[in-house]
Amino acid sequence: MNAPADIQHLLPQVHQRPVPEAFLAALQQRFGAQCSTAMAVREQNGRDESVFSVPPPAAVVFAESTADVADAVALCARHRVPVIPFGVGSSLEGHLLAVQGGISIDLGRMNQVLAIQAEDLTVTVQPGVTRKALNEALRSEGLFFPIDPGADASIGGMAATRASGTNAVRYGTMRENVLALEVVTARGEVIRTGTRARKSSAGYDLTRLMVGSEGTLGVITEITLKLYPLPEAISAAVCSFPSIEAAVHTVIQIIQLGVPIARCELLDAGTVRMVNAHSKLGLREEHMLLMEFHGSPASVKEQAETVQEIAADHGGNAFEWATTPEERTRLWTARHNAYFAAIQSKPGCRAVSTDTCVPISKLADCLLDSVAEADASGLPYFLVGHVGDGNFHFGYLIDPDNAEERRVAEDLNVKLVTRALALEGTCTGEHGVGLHKMGFLLDEAGAGAVEMMRTVKRALDPDDILNPGKIFS
Amino acid sequence: MNAPADIQHLLPQVHQRPVPEAFLAALQQRFGAQCSTAMAVREQNGRDESVFSVPPPAAVVFAESTADVADAVALCARHRVPVIPFGVGSSLEGHLLAVQGGISIDLGRMNQVLAIQAEDLTVTVQPGVTRKALNEALRSEGLFFPIDPGADASIGGMAATRASGTNAVRYGTMRENVLALEVVTARGEVIRTGTRARKSSAGYDLTRLMVGSEGTLGVITEITLKLYPLPEAISAAVCSFPSIEAAVHTVIQIIQLGVPIARCELLDAGTVRMVNAHSKLGLREEHMLLMEFHGSPASVKEQAETVQEIAADHGGNAFEWATTPEERTRLWTARHNAYFAAIQSKPGCRAVSTDTCVPISKLADCLLDSVAEADASGLPYFLVGHVGDGNFHFGYLIDPDNAEERRVAEDLNVKLVTRALALEGTCTGEHGVGLHKMGFLLDEAGAGAVEMMRTVKRALDPDDILNPGKIFS
Repeated sequence: MNAPADIQHLLPQVHQRPVPEAFLAALQQRFGAQCSTAMAVREQNGRDESVFSVPPPAAVVFAESTADVADAVALCARHRVPVIPFGVGSSLEGHLLAVQGGISIDLGRMNQVLAIQAEDLTVTVQPGVTRKALNEALRSEGLFFPIDPGADASIGGMAATRASGTNAVRYGTMRENVLALEVVTARGEVIRTGTRARKSSAGYDLTRLMVGSEGTLGVITEITLKLYPLPEAISAAVCSFPSIEAAVHTVIQIIQLGVPIARCELLDAGTVRMVNAHSKLGLREEHMLLMEFHGSPASVKEQAETVQEIAADHGGNAFEWATTPEERTRLWTARHNAYFAAIQSKPGCRAVSTDTCVPISKLADCLLDSVAEADASGLPYFLVGHVGDGNFHFGYLIDPDNAEERRVAEDLNVKLVTRALALEGTCTGEHGVGLHKMGFLLDEAGAGAVEMMRTVKRALDPDDILNPGKIFS
Repeated sequence: MNAPADIQHLLPQVHQRPVPEAFLAALQQRFGAQCSTAMAVREQNGRDESVFSVPPPAAVVFAESTADVADAVALCARHRVPVIPFGVGSSLEGHLLAVQGGISIDLGRMNQVLAIQAEDLTVTVQPGVTRKALNEALRSEGLFFPIDPGADASIGGMAATRASGTNAVRYGTMRENVLALEVVTARGEVIRTGTRARKSSAGYDLTRLMVGSEGTLGVITEITLKLYPLPEAISAAVCSFPSIEAAVHTVIQIIQLGVPIARCELLDAGTVRMVNAHSKLGLREEHMLLMEFHGSPASVKEQAETVQEIAADHGGNAFEWATTPEERTRLWTARHNAYFAAIQSKPGCRAVSTDTCVPISKLADCLLDSVAEADASGLPYFLVGHVGDGNFHFGYLIDPDNAEERRVAEDLNVKLVTRALALEGTCTGEHGVGLHKMGFLLDEAGAGAVEMMRTVKRALDPDDILNPGKIFS
C-alpha cells in the first residue's frame, strides 16, 4: 500500500479485522491438513486478476464437501470472522481480496460433476468444476454448457459473478442458465434454491438473488445448470472491416434482424496485432469480427449468408471460414488469450478492465467516443467485445506502480461508464462490482435501489462476515 | 365462509385488520374520485379466478401514475394498512384477495406503452398494459412480446407472478424477459432496478427478486421488456395421438433433440371435446399436440419435418397444418379458451387448477399416474399443458359449495404435487403460490429456504403491508 497520495482514493479500503487465536485453533482442529496458514498459500488465495494488492487472508480452508463449507462458515459466524469463497482466482474486480481480513474457503477440491441428467439437458456440479472440465465431461453425451467467460473459471465463481462471455448473445448468461443451487448461509446452514424444472413460480427467486451476489449472501456449494445439445453444424468466420464503426453497425443490424448468431466478437486492429504476436495466428491486422453460427447445416448456411450480406453492405471483406474443429479452436483460443496477449505486450503491466454494456442501438455511440479518448490518452490498450450483447472491454495497460498511468486509466473508465449510464446501459455486463465499481453501482442503480440491496445483505448476513467490503462501499 | 368444517383447512386464513377512519379520510382527500368505497367496486377488485371467496378490501384506489401509487403506499405505510396491487384479476391462486383487509390499488388505468425502442428490441410499459394491447402496439414495428399466459393478463401481474405460457419453451418466461422495473417500496419510495442493457452484473438482481414476488415486496409501476422480431415464417399444426403417453413421448424427444419449437401444447381428448363445444372447432376428439414453429421459411420447414417424423414414430397421425394467420388465431384462441370452455361445461363450477412442472424426462411419469387418479376420482376435469416445459395443468371442475368435491380435488392436487416434487419438479410452474400453495412451497423449498424468503420479506416490508398473507402461511 505504498501508492502515491493522489491515487489513494482509487485503492480499496483495507481494514482487516483481528482474527481471534481461539478461532484459528478451532479451525485447525476441525480441518487439520485441509487448513493452511502458510504465507505462500494465503498469498495465492489472497489475489486475483485485478490491479489491487492487499494483505492476504489469515488462513485458507480447502473444503472437500458441503459439510466442510458449512462447518467453516459456522465457525466464522461464531467468531465474526470474514469468509471469502475462492474458485480459481480469475476475478478481475478484486472479489477475492481480504480487505477486511478473515479466511479464504478454497472450493477447488469440490470439483466433481455430480450428475449429468442428459435426458433433461441439465447437470449438477460442485462449485470448483471449471467450465472446460465440465465441457470435457459432457462431450460424450453430445451436450455442452455454453457460458464462456474466457478464463477457465469455476462454475461457482461464474455463478457468483453472474458471468457470461462469448456465447451469451444466443444462450444467455449465468442468470438464465442456473436452475438450482445449494448454498451455505451466513449462519452455516445449508439451503437449496430452485429445482430441476425449467421454470417455476414458487416463491422468491433465491437462485437469482444468489447468482451475482459475489459471495456476499452465501457460499455456493452445488449448482444445477441448463445444458444444450451440441449443434449439428458449427461454422466460425472472421471478417475484417475498414473501421470499428463499420464493424459495429454490422453487429447492430445482425441483432436487429434477429439472426440467432451464437458468438459475435469484436477485436480492434491493435488487439489483433497483440493476438497475432502471442498466438502466431497470421490474422489480417485490421478491425475484426469473429463470429460463430450454430444449428442444422441448412440453418447455419442461411445465417452465414445473411451475415455476409450485412457485412458486405458495411465494407466488410475477407470473410474467412473456419469449419474444422481444430481451426475453430485455434481462433477462439486466440480470442480468449487476448487478455494474456495484451498483458505480455507490456512486461510487468496490469490491465484496468472496463465492462460496460449498452442497448445494442447505442453501441456505436458508446464505443467510438471511448476509442477516441483511449487513443488520445497515449496509454496502450486492448479492445475486445461481446458486441452482440452491447458489451465490450477496454483493457488499459498500466504499470501498477505508476500513479499517473493508473489515474489516466481510471479517468478513461469513469468517462466510459458515465457515457454508458447516460445511454441506459450498465457499468458491468459480466465482471461484477467487486472493489472497483462500488461508486458506479450507486450512479447506476440509485441510492434507493442500493439501499434495498444493503437491506437484503444486512438481513441475510447481519454480522457482515460473507465477503465483506465488496459491492457496497 | 360457511364451508363445512371438514374443508375449513383448505380455506384461506382471513384476519382482516381494522382500517382506521383517519386513513380512509386521508385516502379520499388525496384521491377524490380516484378512490372508491362502493361495495360493487370493492367486490370487483376483491376476487380473482381462484376458488376462494373472501370479504373485499375496504377501498379501491385507481392509480393513474407512479406518484399515485407511491402516495397510496406511503399512506398505507403510515397507518399500517395492507395494500394489494390489482391488474386485471386473472390470478388463479387468490393473489388479489384481501385476506388481511386493506385496500386494492387498481393499476388498470396505468395502461400506456411508454416507449418502443424497436432498434434495441425493448419496450417500456406501465403495469396495466395487457399482453394483447402490447402486441397490438408492437405489430406495426414488426416485433412481438411472446409471453402468453392464456388470459389477457396485465404485464404488471405477469411480472409479479413470474408468468409464462405457451411460448415459454422457446422464449422463456417473465424471469428471462423483464430487463428493468420501476417499483414502489413498502415505504412508498420509488426505485429502479436493472437497465436496458441485455445483461448486467451490477449488484443484486433486484429485478428478479421482484419478478415473482406476488406484490409482497413492492408495487411494480413500470416494466422494461425484451422483444423479438416477428418470425419471417410461422406454421402451426395439430397432431392426434392414440394415447397421452404417445403424445408425451413425442414431446420429450422433440425437446431432447433441441428442436427450437415455439409452442408445444397438450390437450387431452376430453378437453378437445370441451373446446370443440365452446369454440365450434371440429377438431378430432383425440389426445392432441398443438404446435407452432417460428423462423425462416427453410428453418420452419426443417423443424416441422423433424417433428412429423418423431410424431409418426409414436403413432401420431392426422398432422393438420394451419398456415394462414386466421387459422392459427382460431386454434390458439381455442387453446386459450380451454379454461373457459371447461368452466362452461359444468354450470356454476369453479376449477381447482394444478400447475406442476417437472424435468422433461419425468413428464410421462408425472402425468400418466395423475391422469389415472383423476379418472378414478370421477370428477370432471380438463388437462392442458405447456408440455415442452414439463408444465401442465389439470383443472378439476367442482361445485364450490360442495365440500366433498373440493376435498377430492385438493386430494388429487396433493398427490400430484407430491409426485412432482419427488421427480425434482416444482409445485407451480407459472401461477405462483398465492393462498393455495403455501404448504407446497414449504415442501418444495424446505424450511431453510422459506425462512430466507421470510427474512427478505421482513427486511423489505417490516410492517407486512404489501399483499400480506400470501406466499407464506
